[in-house]
Amino acid sequence: MPYKLGDIAEHLNAELRGDPECLISELSTLAEATPSCLSFLSNRRYIKQLESTQAAAVILDNKNANKCPAHALVVDNPYLGYALAAQLLYPLTDIKPGIHSTSSIAETARIDANSQINAHAVVQEGAVIGTGVFIASGCVIGSNVVIGDNTRLLENTVVCHHVVIGKNVLIHPGVVIGADGFGLAEQNDGSWIKIPQIGSVIVEDDVEIGANTTIDRGALGDTYIGRGVKIDNQVQIGHNVTIGEFTAIAGCTGIAGSSRLGKRCRIGGGCGISGHLEITDDVILTGMSAVNNSIIQSGIYSSPLSATDNKTWRKNVARFHRLDESFKKIRDEISEIKNG
Amino acid sequence: MPYKLGDIAEHLNAELRGDPECLISELSTLAEATPSCLSFLSNRRYIKQLESTQAAAVILDNKNANKCPAHALVVDNPYLGYALAAQLLYPLTDIKPGIHSTSSIAETARIDANSQINAHAVVQEGAVIGTGVFIASGCVIGSNVVIGDNTRLLENTVVCHHVVIGKNVLIHPGVVIGADGFGLAEQNDGSWIKIPQIGSVIVEDDVEIGANTTIDRGALGDTYIGRGVKIDNQVQIGHNVTIGEFTAIAGCTGIAGSSRLGKRCRIGGGCGISGHLEITDDVILTGMSAVNNSIIQSGIYSSPLSATDNKTWRKNVARFHRLDESFKKIRDEISEIKNG
Amino acid sequence: MPYKLGDIAEHLNAELRGDPECLISELSTLAEATPSCLSFLSNRRYIKQLESTQAAAVILDNKNANKCPAHALVVDNPYLGYALAAQLLYPLTDIKPGIHSTSSIAETARIDANSQINAHAVVQEGAVIGTGVFIASGCVIGSNVVIGDNTRLLENTVVCHHVVIGKNVLIHPGVVIGADGFGLAEQNDGSWIKIPQIGSVIVEDDVEIGANTTIDRGALGDTYIGRGVKIDNQVQIGHNVTIGEFTAIAGCTGIAGSSRLGKRCRIGGGCGISGHLEITDDVILTGMSAVNNSIIQSGIYSSPLSATDNKTWRKNVARFHRLDESFKKIRDEISEIKNG
Repeated sequence: MPYKLGDIAEHLNAELRGDPECLISELSTLAEATPSCLSFLSNRRYIKQLESTQAAAVILDNKNANKCPAHALVVDNPYLGYALAAQLLYPLTDIKPGIHSTSSIAETARIDANSQINAHAVVQEGAVIGTGVFIASGCVIGSNVVIGDNTRLLENTVVCHHVVIGKNVLIHPGVVIGADGFGLAEQNDGSWIKIPQIGSVIVEDDVEIGANTTIDRGALGDTYIGRGVKIDNQVQIGHNVTIGEFTAIAGCTGIAGSSRLGKRCRIGGGCGISGHLEITDDVILTGMSAVNNSIIQSGIYSSPLSATDNKTWRKNVARFHRLDESFKKIRDEISEIKNG
Repeated sequence: MPYKLGDIAEHLNAELRGDPECLISELSTLAEATPSCLSFLSNRRYIKQLESTQAAAVILDNKNANKCPAHALVVDNPYLGYALAAQLLYPLTDIKPGIHSTSSIAETARIDANSQINAHAVVQEGAVIGTGVFIASGCVIGSNVVIGDNTRLLENTVVCHHVVIGKNVLIHPGVVIGADGFGLAEQNDGSWIKIPQIGSVIVEDDVEIGANTTIDRGALGDTYIGRGVKIDNQVQIGHNVTIGEFTAIAGCTGIAGSSRLGKRCRIGGGCGISGHLEITDDVILTGMSAVNNSIIQSGIYSSPLSATDNKTWRKNVARFHRLDESFKKIRDEISEIKNG
Repeated sequence: MPYKLGDIAEHLNAELRGDPECLISELSTLAEATPSCLSFLSNRRYIKQLESTQAAAVILDNKNANKCPAHALVVDNPYLGYALAAQLLYPLTDIKPGIHSTSSIAETARIDANSQINAHAVVQEGAVIGTGVFIASGCVIGSNVVIGDNTRLLENTVVCHHVVIGKNVLIHPGVVIGADGFGLAEQNDGSWIKIPQIGSVIVEDDVEIGANTTIDRGALGDTYIGRGVKIDNQVQIGHNVTIGEFTAIAGCTGIAGSSRLGKRCRIGGGCGISGHLEITDDVILTGMSAVNNSIIQSGIYSSPLSATDNKTWRKNVARFHRLDESFKKIRDEISEIKNG
C-alpha cells in the first residue's frame, strides 16, 4: 500500500522539498532504488550513489540536500529518519486475537482476549498475559510469569517461572529468560553443591532481546534489564546482573554474575565482562574486549589485538611472552652503559 | 513453610549459637534480610553489613561469630553452608507423575510410571526413561536415548538419538546434546564432504548443563562428560571431547574437538580451547583465555589483555604489532653503543 | 548390513590391495578396530597404531601402504576416503513421507508428498516445501518460506518468514534463521528506534548449519550464505553478511553486519569479525582472532595471545599496558647516550 510523500514527511517531522503527492511503495538503498522507492543518505561513504540514484525521494540532511536529484526529505539525523520511515512503511504485523487449538494453557493462566497464542505454545499456571501480546509457536511461558501489553515473544522462546516482562518488549526466537544462574559451592572433595537460584528476572518496557540469548534468574534478588535496553543474538547475561536503560549489547557478549552496567552504554560484539564489576554510564566497549576491572569513567575502552598475518603474529606473541624479562634486561644493559 | 533453626543447623552440620526454636521462612542477603530471614557471611567484603543486619540468624565461620548480632550457625565454609541451607529451604519442585495428553510418545519408548512428561514433549522409538524423571514442554528425546533416574530436562531441550544421560542430571532450556560434530573432508575443488558422526554422547551422573549449551556427538567413539561436571550457558563442546569429573565451565566457552580436560578444572567464561589438546587436572583458566597448547601442570593460566581506554590501547596495539622489529632494533642499537 | 571391500573400494575410487570379498560391518579408529572393521590412516601421528591394528582393512596413501598389516584401500587423500566410506556405511536415515497428526500446517502451505513432517512441527501460510524434505519435531517454518529438495531441518529449528533455503541443506537443532538483525537508530535522549528488518536470508544448496547457530535477516536486501558453506554450532551471522561458497566457520564465531567473506575461507572457532569488512577468498583465520580491518590478501591471519601461567601473564600484561610509554623512554635514553 503506497504512502504519500507528504504523509511520510509529516511522520518524520522532515522538511519536504518536492511533491507531497508523490507515491512511495518501498524503501531501498540508494544504489538499488527504483522510481517508487524512498531512500536515505546517512553515511558520507554513499554520497556518490546519491547523484545517480533512481529513488523517488531521499531522506538526507540539509548539507547534502542541494545535491539530491529527487524529492528531498530534509532532517537533522537521516539515519533516524530512515528508521522512522521504515516503521511507517513496514509496520508490525497485526495481532490476530485468539488461542490456537493446539496450544496448552493452564486453567489458572489469565490471558487477555486481545492477545494471540500460536500453535503448540504453552502457558503454565498463574501466568498473566496483557493485551495485544503475541506468543509464537513453541514458546513456553512458565508458572506465574507476567507479560506486559503489546509484548511479542517469537518462536520457541522460554520464559521460566515468576519472570516479569514489561510492555512493548520484543523477544526473538530461541531466547531463554530465567534459567538458573551458575551458582555452586565447592565441597572438600572438589565436587559441587548447587545453590538454588531463588531470585527472578525483571525485563522493563521497550526492551529487545536477540535470538538464542540467555538471561539467568538471580541467586538472591533479581537480574534486571532496564527500560529500552537492546540486546543482540547469543548474548549471555549472568545472575543478578543489572543493565541500565538504553544500553545496547551486541552479539556473542557475555556478562558474568552480579555486574552492573550503567545507562546508555554500547557494548560491542564478543566482549566478556567479569563478575561483580561496575561499569558506569555512557561507556563504549569495542568488540572482543575483556573487562576485568570496574570502569568508573565514561569513554571508549578496548582490549583485543587485531588479526595480522600469522608469521608476524607468531613472532610478536613470542616477544609478548618475554615482555617483562626483555624490558628488565634492556633496563639493566642501559644502566650498565650509563654507569660505565 | 518455616523451618526451625535447630533443624537447619543439623542439616548444615553447624554449631548453633542461639535459639533452636527460632523460625526461618526465607533466605536473604545480610543487607536485605528481615527478622524471619536466614543470611550468611562468606565474603569479607560484606562484614560491615553483618553488624546491622536484621536477619534472625546468620551462617558464618568461627572467626566472625562473635560479631554476629543474631543467632549464629557456625561452620567452616559459610558459602557451602548457604548452599545447603538454600537446598533445604527451596527444594526442587515435586515430580507429578504422568504423561501430558499433548505429548507425542513412540510406542516402543519405555517411560517409568513415576516420571513426568509435559505438554508437547516428544519421546521417540526405543528411548528408555528412568524413574523420577522430568521432561519439560517442547523437549525432544531422540530414538534409543537413555535417561537415568531423577534427571530433569527443561524446556525445548533436544537430546539426539542414542545419547546416554545419567542420574540426577539437570539440563536447562534450549540445550542440544548429540548434534553432529563439525567433521568435514576437503575435496580438490575446495568443497567439503561431510563425515557422518557415528559416535554418541555420554553424560554421567550429577551433571548440570546451562541454557542453550551444545554438546556434539562423537565422530567415532563418544563425547564424554564426567560425573559431577557443571557447565554454564552457551558453552560449545565439540565432538569427542572428554571432561573429567567435577570440572566446571563458565558461560560462552568453546572446546574444540577431541580435547581432553582433567578433573576439577575451572574454566572461566568466554575461553577458547583448541582441538586435540590435553588439559591436566586442577587447571584454572581465567576468563577469555585462548588455549593453543596442552597444559601438563596444574595451576592458573590466562591470556587476554584487559580493556583500557581506547586511545592508550591503540598506541600499545600499534607497538605490539612491531614488537619483534622494535626489540631487534633496540638490541642492535645497544650492541652498537657497547661496541663503540 | 556388511559391505564387500570391493564395493567400498569402488565407492572410494581406491586401489584395493587385498580381498574384494572381505566383509566390513563397521568403521573404527586403528586402535579400536576389530576384525570386521574398516579403519584409516590420515595423520602420521597414528602410524604406530597401523602396525598393531586389528582392522580387516585400512584406507591409506601409497606411502604407507607397504606397512599395512591388513587389506589396503590406497587413495591419494585418506581423510577424504574415510569420509566417503563413512557416508557409504552410515547413510542418512530414510525419509518416511507423511505429516504427523500433531503438526500444525497452514492450509496455504504446499508440502511435497514425499516429505516428512514430524510431531509438533509448524508450517505457516504460503510456505513451499520440496520433495524429500525432513522437518523434525518442534520446528517452525514461517510464512512464505521456501525449502529445497532433500533438505533436513532438525529439532526445534526456527526459519522465519520469507527465508529461502536451497537443496541438500542440513540444519541442526535449535538454529534460528531470519530473525531481525540488530538495527537501531539513536534518538537525542539516548533511546533507540528499531529499524524494521525488511530483507531476508538466502541459504544456497549443500550448506550445513550447526546447532543453536543464528543467521539474521537483512535490513535492506538479504543475508547470503553461499553454496556448500559449512557453519558449526553457536555461530552468529549478522544482517546482510555474505559468505562465499565452500567457506567453513567453526563454533562460537560472530560476524557483524554487512561483512563479506570470500570463497573457501576457513574461520577458526571463537573469532570475531567486525561489521562492513571485506575478507577475500582463501583466508584462514586461526581461532579466537579479532578482525577489525578488511583482509585483501589470501593467507593465514591470527590475533589472540595464548594462555600462559597467570603470574608471568600478569607481568607481561602490565608491560603491555605501558608499551608505548616504555618504548618512548628507552628511545630517549638511547638517544641521550648516543648524543653524549
